[in-house]
Amino acid sequence: MSSLQNFTYDELEIGQTATFSKTLTEEDITLFAATSGDINPVHLDADFAATTMFKERIGHGAWTGSVISAALALVMPGPGTIYLSQNLSFRAPVKIGDTITIHLTVTDKKDDKKFVTLDTKAVNQDGKNVAIGTSEVIAPTEKMTLPRPELPTITLG
Amino acid sequence: MSSLQNFTYDELEIGQTATFSKTLTEEDITLFAATSGDINPVHLDADFAATTMFKERIGHGAWTGSVISAALALVMPGPGTIYLSQNLSFRAPVKIGDTITIHLTVTDKKDDKKFVTLDTKAVNQDGKNVAIGTSEVIAPTEKMTLPRPELPTITLG
Repeated sequence: MSSLQNFTYDELEIGQTATFSKTLTEEDITLFAATSGDINPVHLDADFAATTMFKERIGHGAWTGSVISAALALVMPGPGTIYLSQNLSFRAPVKIGDTITIHLTVTDKKDDKKFVTLDTKAVNQDGKNVAIGTSEVIAPTEKMTLPRPELPTITLG
Repeated sequence: MSSLQNFTYDELEIGQTATFSKTLTEEDITLFAATSGDINPVHLDADFAATTMFKERIGHGAWTGSVISAALALVMPGPGTIYLSQNLSFRAPVKIGDTITIHLTVTDKKDDKKFVTLDTKAVNQDGKNVAIGTSEVIAPTEKMTLPRPELPTITLG
């Protein structure tokens, strides 16, 4: 994808689906800890994590939430979406190397305010739900095609 | 804080409060975009953001959610907490330079499963709610004092 395109409110239909995937890397965990301030050792310290029920380092639950936000912002409805609310129930840990696919399904539309409700499911490469929930957004009314912003190089060390 | 200490389930009382603050920097937005994949131009592209209702770049809504996760993981209940669910309603944008304070209040406890419900409010430096919601966690049963993990240096550009 070299550009981002949205679905306008009128283009969205109940039952419409979209997906977005991201693989959790060790670097992603470090960056998430830095940006959020959440330096919980279960995410960062392999020795500590080995003593927990998870046995190894896991991704932040809120990281999975952030990938849902990416799915809404980039894929459906896409650019111009305004995020109103999210609820999320965490069902299973995400490990380094896991590929999480966000499955979005439009479940409701409110024409007067252009509110759209979406079912949001985060599923790992084994088909297991790691988080399930619901998003409410205001969908864009204007069709947009935008260049994908480039991020600067990030170096750790 | 050079170490992290938790509140065990038994130490938590209904009505107990705690806070955790973080100031959103431009670098935080870049790191959040990288780790989540959410490169929505409203967060990254000042020219595009100027054309939106927000008039300038704003932080990701899910970033505010990530700071709530930091508050739960580091302050109350702290290390050993297992995150079960979060709901969050976004009320106002967060701008670069805004200091967000997470206000946590214990609102319910379920002794059999050590479930704790917390009211979670994210408030900016002007006292305005930017997001409000509820967290459900399993509180730790074991008292812990842990060293704060150090993050590697992160260089952008």
